[in-house]
Amino acid sequence: MSLVKLYDTTLRDGTQAEDISFLVEDKIRIAHKLDEIGIHYIEGGWPGSNPKDVAFFKDIKKEKLSQAKIAAFGSTRRAKITPDKDHNLKTLVQAEPDVCTIFGKTWDFHVREALRISLEENLELVFDSLEYLKARVPEVFYDAEHFFDGYKANPDYAIKTLKAAQDAKADCIVLCDTNGGTMPFELVEIIREVRKHISAPLGIHTHNDSECAVANSIHAVNEGIVQVQGTINGFGERCGNANLCSIIPALNIKMKRECISDEQLRKMRDISRLVYELANISPDKHQPYVGNSAFAHKGGVHVSAIQRHPETYEHMRPERVGNMTRVLISDLSGRSNILAKAEEFKINMDSKDPVTLEILDNIKEMENRGYQFEGAEASFELLMKRALGTHRKFFSVIGFRVIDEKRHEDQKPFSEATIMVKVGGKVEHTAAEGNGPVNALDNALRKALEKFYPKLKEVKLLDYKVRVLPAGQGTASSTRVLIESGDKEARWGTVGVSENIVDASYQALIDSIEYKLHRSDEGEAAKK
Amino acid sequence: MSLVKLYDTTLRDGTQAEDISFLVEDKIRIAHKLDEIGIHYIEGGWPGSNPKDVAFFKDIKKEKLSQAKIAAFGSTRRAKITPDKDHNLKTLVQAEPDVCTIFGKTWDFHVREALRISLEENLELVFDSLEYLKARVPEVFYDAEHFFDGYKANPDYAIKTLKAAQDAKADCIVLCDTNGGTMPFELVEIIREVRKHISAPLGIHTHNDSECAVANSIHAVNEGIVQVQGTINGFGERCGNANLCSIIPALNIKMKRECISDEQLRKMRDISRLVYELANISPDKHQPYVGNSAFAHKGGVHVSAIQRHPETYEHMRPERVGNMTRVLISDLSGRSNILAKAEEFKINMDSKDPVTLEILDNIKEMENRGYQFEGAEASFELLMKRALGTHRKFFSVIGFRVIDEKRHEDQKPFSEATIMVKVGGKVEHTAAEGNGPVNALDNALRKALEKFYPKLKEVKLLDYKVRVLPAGQGTASSTRVLIESGDKEARWGTVGVSENIVDASYQALIDSIEYKLHRSDEGEAAKK
Repeated sequence: MSLVKLYDTTLRDGTQAEDISFLVEDKIRIAHKLDEIGIHYIEGGWPGSNPKDVAFFKDIKKEKLSQAKIAAFGSTRRAKITPDKDHNLKTLVQAEPDVCTIFGKTWDFHVREALRISLEENLELVFDSLEYLKARVPEVFYDAEHFFDGYKANPDYAIKTLKAAQDAKADCIVLCDTNGGTMPFELVEIIREVRKHISAPLGIHTHNDSECAVANSIHAVNEGIVQVQGTINGFGERCGNANLCSIIPALNIKMKRECISDEQLRKMRDISRLVYELANISPDKHQPYVGNSAFAHKGGVHVSAIQRHPETYEHMRPERVGNMTRVLISDLSGRSNILAKAEEFKINMDSKDPVTLEILDNIKEMENRGYQFEGAEASFELLMKRALGTHRKFFSVIGFRVIDEKRHEDQKPFSEATIMVKVGGKVEHTAAEGNGPVNALDNALRKALEKFYPKLKEVKLLDYKVRVLPAGQGTASSTRVLIESGDKEARWGTVGVSENIVDASYQALIDSIEYKLHRSDEGEAAKK
Repeated sequence: MSLVKLYDTTLRDGTQAEDISFLVEDKIRIAHKLDEIGIHYIEGGWPGSNPKDVAFFKDIKKEKLSQAKIAAFGSTRRAKITPDKDHNLKTLVQAEPDVCTIFGKTWDFHVREALRISLEENLELVFDSLEYLKARVPEVFYDAEHFFDGYKANPDYAIKTLKAAQDAKADCIVLCDTNGGTMPFELVEIIREVRKHISAPLGIHTHNDSECAVANSIHAVNEGIVQVQGTINGFGERCGNANLCSIIPALNIKMKRECISDEQLRKMRDISRLVYELANISPDKHQPYVGNSAFAHKGGVHVSAIQRHPETYEHMRPERVGNMTRVLISDLSGRSNILAKAEEFKINMDSKDPVTLEILDNIKEMENRGYQFEGAEASFELLMKRALGTHRKFFSVIGFRVIDEKRHEDQKPFSEATIMVKVGGKVEHTAAEGNGPVNALDNALRKALEKFYPKLKEVKLLDYKVRVLPAGQGTASSTRVLIESGDKEARWGTVGVSENIVDASYQALIDSIEYKLHRSDEGEAAKK
């Protein structure tokens, strides 16, 4: 079986997604990561379409990539002119990529309606655009746009367009399900037909409009296709492109078609996260293979089974893609979950202990009020400590005041917080400003407590998430704040819920500080 | 071809998902909607497992459903006892459902490791548990847990377990890909093998751990399976269950296997939204068929094509599932997007107009600062009006102050806002309290302006979303606030971005109020 080559278009087709746009520096960072995990081709953009993409091809030349080839995307020449007069083709060559990929029309309907030229003329467009590039670029791929729809509408003509590309010596002919509407059993049938007429290497490019993009790509490989195009996390217009984060593990682990090394495979979750981060999109926790929930277990039954034999409820070992098994805390939790968590936090607790049940009831009651401990393990640990009586009160907040003031129309509001805390017998009363009320409150709180606990200087606020829980269900709408904090050694999440966003933030901030103090306390104890 | 029956397990398997739990009232509401769209079987829960589920079966009896049958879920009897002594089977019968669905072990590994009984004994469990239920419940289905993994490990034994179910006269034998690891081409092969040995009606139950759940379900129907199990929006443990919102349109539109009416199909987006809302999960905008982005077009080229012939870039008409085509505003926007939007807002603008370009530049600059106009069309409309000079300044805010105060440890903070506005020559200076700073500011702002614009009394704040844009990318981390407001006639979204959450909220509030005033203004004008 020939090696399947991976072709990533996150930087081009991926940016067609709603809300996604990358700076050139982002694109360079992503390209390096793609190279690192062994992606064979990286489509950097459409130099003909915008200056940002031109800049990318210029900058990427200065970078050292270990193996990946850089591809530039474009279209067949415009009608009525020769390739050497076509601006789009010329910019492609000027970008000096390792590969050029151009798309052309397969669907007779598009030729008539979009291009408004004769079917014959379109075949010439395909042929001489590719011929022109072949003479000037190391490798040339042809994307047969709307191939499957085109084939269904007019099979003979669709095949003719592929033949034109084959005659022009395209190095790979990529069958595109541009509208993402093709059913998997149709796709298999059509590929088998194509292989009767086309001997050139074939590739696949699918979209997820029918939620079949990954399955269709997997089928294509199973039918002998040698190039798979897709994006990290399935980013792409409408419902997205084929998700390489799901396709690669399937090829490597389930189909034994290793296209990257095991070590590279273990970075799958890293690259997924990096791309979400740079795209400023919060990750889909239910994403197959790499999502936080992909190997998370909630039902009590499952949990006890998982601990004996992971394969009972896991289709593969999460570590292979850099993910991990997680045990969730929720109102479906059995004691086994609580115990598993306790173990994770190295808290001694036995299943007969009534405290275990007390914690369960506590969690249920808090969850009903909108608390959520996934992503807030530190708050959960404090909750357990309080129930077990191993919690220590390091300080108490007597009161605070936060003021946000805007003095005239064109002036930004100014935020200031005053706070009064009590540590041991001592009262500290101080104030600080900040970007907004929460930041000001955080600053004032630390300023007051650092005098007593200098270790707090190490703590950084890493992330701050607000979720407004819709009203209805009887309760008034309330706010849930998740805060992620960290120091040199660790990161921890805490949660607060209240009708008042400042109060919810305050709860999460307090938990974060208490957690830090417990940790360093235990650190000290350990040293002794 | 026999009718394919739809079996929804949103209320049971769906609630295994991380973060998802429904109140009994939610379950009843969802059941009614499922019945309304023509789902044939609604799995309400596992009465043996928790009291909440017992309550559901009691309450649903009082409800009038038009056609859906209610199914109760459970497992085969425990070992070493007769069915009539088994608590789990007894509670199933006591729940008096129209259907009982029980799962049993197919995978020899599970029989030994999880049940810890002999393979022979497990066959008896399957047989007499089903036999017991068949004598007491109208319809009985058998879920063959881990069927595909079990078949791969030990095909003969896997088939034996199905035969036991068939001998017990199970009305449908459901092949489950419990761990979601089965590749589509494997699934097709295995189903063909099963059909050589089993004549009873077959069903399919897949999970999405390989991102193939929908494709696998579609394949199963194509292979002659007559019952498809899944959940709304694909809710479910880990990566979720098969998504009925994607399977049903595929069956009805693409495979011509109508399982619900066209009118019911048009409610697909409604039910998707209802379930997200009750689950308190924000919808996946890229979700196939029903998501906001499913038929959203960003690239300028696409947009102009779409407007001439939707089928060029849409695999089906969105209206058929109650969705719609959308044109997005983004830094990839061509003039055509701007013009399409302007048309949507009935603003006259021609493509030669330099203002069109000014708006484009404006948008790009704002998007770089973190603004986002998808979901904030009202802010975008005001932006256009300002550029076109058709914007009217109804008021100016001279200044405001918001105070959040917590007076002692156990007291909730109190929020109060004071504001000074100027309308025409008049200055209004007033104050109001609220749940948190933003709510207080909103209350004060309206209180001050309602004196001059009584129409503002109609405006309600419907939703409030906060997104913290990560720092890095050179900029300091800032906050984006999206507000949805509404009155009797309409809903509109506005956006604000600032390092300060109060300032960002303030911007969005101001836009919301200005938008309302413009609308009623134009309303008046129209009347004259």
